[in-house]
Amino acid sequence: VSAETFEIILQPIGRRIEMPAGATVLDAARQAGVELVALCGGEGVCGACRVRLIEGRLSDPTLTETDNLPDEDLAHGYRLGCQAQILSNVRIDIPPESLTTPQRLQLEGQDASVELAPAAIPLEVAVPAPGLDDLRSDLTRLTEAAAKLSPLTLSFSRSILADLPAKLRAHNWQVRLALRQNEVVAILPPHSPLYGLAVDVGTTKLAAYLVNLETGHTAAKLGAMNPQIAYGEDVISRITYANEHAGGALTLQSRLVETLNQLASDLCVQANAQTDNIVEAVIVGNTAMHHLFTGLPVRQLGLAPYVPAVSEAMQFPAREVGLQLAAGAYVYLPPNIAGYVGADHVAMLLGAGLVETPQTVIALDIGTNTEISLFHQGRHFSCSCASGPAFEGAHIQFGMRAAPGAIERVRINGHDVQIHTIGDQAAVGLCGSGILDVVAELLHARLIDTRGVLKGTHPRLKANGSKTEFVLVLAEKSGVERDIKVSRADINEIQLAKGAIRAGIETLLAVAGVDDQAIDQFIVAGAFGTYLDLESAIRIGLFPNLPRERYRQVGNAAGSGARQLLISTHERQLAKAIVQHVEYVELAGHLAFTSVYVKALAFPSA
Amino acid sequence: VSAETFEIILQPIGRRIEMPAGATVLDAARQAGVELVALCGGEGVCGACRVRLIEGRLSDPTLTETDNLPDEDLAHGYRLGCQAQILSNVRIDIPPESLTTPQRLQLEGQDASVELAPAAIPLEVAVPAPGLDDLRSDLTRLTEAAAKLSPLTLSFSRSILADLPAKLRAHNWQVRLALRQNEVVAILPPHSPLYGLAVDVGTTKLAAYLVNLETGHTAAKLGAMNPQIAYGEDVISRITYANEHAGGALTLQSRLVETLNQLASDLCVQANAQTDNIVEAVIVGNTAMHHLFTGLPVRQLGLAPYVPAVSEAMQFPAREVGLQLAAGAYVYLPPNIAGYVGADHVAMLLGAGLVETPQTVIALDIGTNTEISLFHQGRHFSCSCASGPAFEGAHIQFGMRAAPGAIERVRINGHDVQIHTIGDQAAVGLCGSGILDVVAELLHARLIDTRGVLKGTHPRLKANGSKTEFVLVLAEKSGVERDIKVSRADINEIQLAKGAIRAGIETLLAVAGVDDQAIDQFIVAGAFGTYLDLESAIRIGLFPNLPRERYRQVGNAAGSGARQLLISTHERQLAKAIVQHVEYVELAGHLAFTSVYVKALAFPSA
Repeated sequence: VSAETFEIILQPIGRRIEMPAGATVLDAARQAGVELVALCGGEGVCGACRVRLIEGRLSDPTLTETDNLPDEDLAHGYRLGCQAQILSNVRIDIPPESLTTPQRLQLEGQDASVELAPAAIPLEVAVPAPGLDDLRSDLTRLTEAAAKLSPLTLSFSRSILADLPAKLRAHNWQVRLALRQNEVVAILPPHSPLYGLAVDVGTTKLAAYLVNLETGHTAAKLGAMNPQIAYGEDVISRITYANEHAGGALTLQSRLVETLNQLASDLCVQANAQTDNIVEAVIVGNTAMHHLFTGLPVRQLGLAPYVPAVSEAMQFPAREVGLQLAAGAYVYLPPNIAGYVGADHVAMLLGAGLVETPQTVIALDIGTNTEISLFHQGRHFSCSCASGPAFEGAHIQFGMRAAPGAIERVRINGHDVQIHTIGDQAAVGLCGSGILDVVAELLHARLIDTRGVLKGTHPRLKANGSKTEFVLVLAEKSGVERDIKVSRADINEIQLAKGAIRAGIETLLAVAGVDDQAIDQFIVAGAFGTYLDLESAIRIGLFPNLPRERYRQVGNAAGSGARQLLISTHERQLAKAIVQHVEYVELAGHLAFTSVYVKALAFPSA
Repeated sequence: VSAETFEIILQPIGRRIEMPAGATVLDAARQAGVELVALCGGEGVCGACRVRLIEGRLSDPTLTETDNLPDEDLAHGYRLGCQAQILSNVRIDIPPESLTTPQRLQLEGQDASVELAPAAIPLEVAVPAPGLDDLRSDLTRLTEAAAKLSPLTLSFSRSILADLPAKLRAHNWQVRLALRQNEVVAILPPHSPLYGLAVDVGTTKLAAYLVNLETGHTAAKLGAMNPQIAYGEDVISRITYANEHAGGALTLQSRLVETLNQLASDLCVQANAQTDNIVEAVIVGNTAMHHLFTGLPVRQLGLAPYVPAVSEAMQFPAREVGLQLAAGAYVYLPPNIAGYVGADHVAMLLGAGLVETPQTVIALDIGTNTEISLFHQGRHFSCSCASGPAFEGAHIQFGMRAAPGAIERVRINGHDVQIHTIGDQAAVGLCGSGILDVVAELLHARLIDTRGVLKGTHPRLKANGSKTEFVLVLAEKSGVERDIKVSRADINEIQLAKGAIRAGIETLLAVAGVDDQAIDQFIVAGAFGTYLDLESAIRIGLFPNLPRERYRQVGNAAGSGARQLLISTHERQLAKAIVQHVEYVELAGHLAFTSVYVKALAFPSA
């Protein structure tokens, strides 16, 4: 074992750690506090600690691995964590089944009351069987029977027709059709329920819902990580991957669709349904996720002036992208506003009930890109700011995503430092709300100045070489492997993120000519927005200091919006109206933006 | 080498021959008069005599073969004809490139004058390029530019959108759209021609046409064998193959589509065009070919009461079945009349200009199934009769398809027997028109009686065991490998075929209540119909004895109809009108049919 060390990035958790050359992946995960299933204690017997090499070099597979892993898996980079030794900087993907505890995913969102007007409705038809005195084709006999029940002239795709003869005979000439306007999208046994699938495709996480289209009731919900994370943490790196690898875009699309199919199937198990009964899907995501899912090119999204290929709403047969739902099911995607304000922002606005409002309202969803809308005096402005991944735990020394063991709450009272971790587990690192809290508490305790420099005296403030660090968790006291610390560099990342977001808010307010104190409602959507401590956010200057009752943390409003779009075609009209009405503000085009941004980088005086 | 002999069937030629065990496939082909390319004279050096084993057993591949053939080809049954020895009854497919001379295919047909109204028309659009002051999506900028030129609200499939950003930029924001109603089916360089592809998919042969949609001019035409022949000679054996093999229907579809793609590509080379410029296709075929091509199930076509899955006209994106044309090109298939009267019959009627007529008209296309239409006093009746493959050379001892070396004309004048072969090559066997002639000439010479029994005396009438045979070609005189003979069994096959067809004609006439002498026009379509000798057909009783000027041999009218359907959407309305108006007559449902058939089996008195 040499003295050399390498950086190991554990995905989809997003945890980074330095390890000596020759350490195993299981060692690295343990050191980082990420619990891999290792039933045999790392002896190479149980085969449970399966991981996948994305980038970098590991030792050659051992006999234990060639015995335990199918050739195909080995060919795809699968390894046993306890066997594979680290020989370079590596990126490792940990499949969900190899983790002892699942990651926290944001599924809840407010349910708006939406009148039912689903895209697909049922029609029960009894079809006469053929005989020597009735030689009509299967299609003719079905359409003629349906014509007695409905004034619509039914249309049928080739896929539906291919199933028609077998289905009519299997269901003894008594079927339930799912009709999407006049198109037959499914041929089901009599009295089958009709379901819809709504998915919020985040850059990091997926939230999927199975909804009964006849009642509007959400029958099941599930979260998952976006499997594209293995190919790049943020939108820009995904676009780069798609552009620079032959078949890269197709890989990203296929991995996503595989996971969506798995989610659809798992949701159906929860709800005791069949994927054949899913007759419509709504997918919402940012413009890059939208383009990658639909198979649109993303090259022009990565080049100035960053225009989308398509901003209009799209709908097409789900089978075209490999989604395994009813044979004729459609996927609907709401319109995008701009290259970096996507259909998920439109869905978020619908979920929050914000189509038009007489009030002055800010609504935002914080992520690597933060999309912000301002409604004021009948106008609607929106912008996107590159807030970076700091609030998702990236680029922070001990940062991680909101998985078990992540510190999500911090309170500093004099010398007393209190933390709370997700799942009350031993601390592994800091997720977004934890980092936000630390910075706010350090500010409040006057241990950092308005420029973000650590200062003053506190038992936890320690020198590390020429740098000062705040030790949040002491290894010797809490039994974790090593100290969990916050540095000036970490604080700087938070400054960059909150500066970008606040500057976006201020620019929109300036464009609309309105003062921040005039904001009647300030709506915070999304996972981080749900878990963040409002006082901390105001204290570091991320949000303006408004009376607290004006804030609303609405959870996964994009997911709610997606469900609304599923059960009501009227909502699809509203989505179109939003995009036609919105005035997109390109921050790069505003001369004042840079000075607003520089000002917003500083912390407020405590 | 044992004394055992095996039957070798050479496809797609359709030539059968007995060979001793251990003979090579090249030997068998030579013996049968089928010329394989063998540049090296059968030494195994040139690798040109590639054949494919469909069924049965050959010797293991020799080193010569493993050296000359890629592993993948060997895995797919490809062999060298000079190396592979016959170890059982076998069925061998000979690819076109391994034949010295191509098979004769029927491409010509009368061109009806049809007013141009193609399904796709062009629209030239200049699109403004994006910039920081114009952030519209690619789709928005295109549709807004097109809206200034056309009142249509354009629609776009996902496949077209996926190409849009690259095409706009490649053509410098100046494009030619192909519009199918309001759907954009192709994005082309400015001023590109728009082409259509029309294909008559016969059970045996394909006839393909490339047509300029703006002029109606046929730019190129090509024929090919239907590659599905390797999986069964007739419709019933294809249906059986599809039903009894896992993935069988998909195999039949894929093989056909591969050949269609090759034809499209070859047609484009002929016409100096690109397959991207083919923006619409029309495919006509019998109901089984229609269902296999479109991916509809054929199981119910093989079971009483033999109903089609779909009788209505179909249109769907060509890419759905793997046809490689313009990204958004559609395939249109005209409606079917019944399980055994398909869309090709409808196309034939259109090609012959028969939508409605005040005259009494018979129109038929002779094949393994023969479809017959009768127009009389404003009504239109149609039926199908199982005429069998005798007129395609099958089930005839020396029968073969219309390939070089096939005897197509026979004249017997006393002791003088004259033959004419296709390509004036050494006689290999008899194709349909040759068999028809032999029987007619033997009847005329009173060498067979009305029951079909060979009788009388003639130097060429020879005993073969207990059977009498007529020797058409003497091996010793003409340098062929062995005598080419006609037996009582061959004559019987012709009786069965002509009896079925004539009985179909008579039954339609009886249903309409009209005498055969009242027929004003008797239209004979298709390849065999073009080459048959009318006097012979009347002499054996295949056709009624009408004044000769009432007959019209119209060539490949189905191919002409397919081209009309390509360049005129009005013709598609006519196709629909034909199918709505026609009265299908199920012969099996007619009590009188059997007695009519038995009567029709006999030959007329000479």
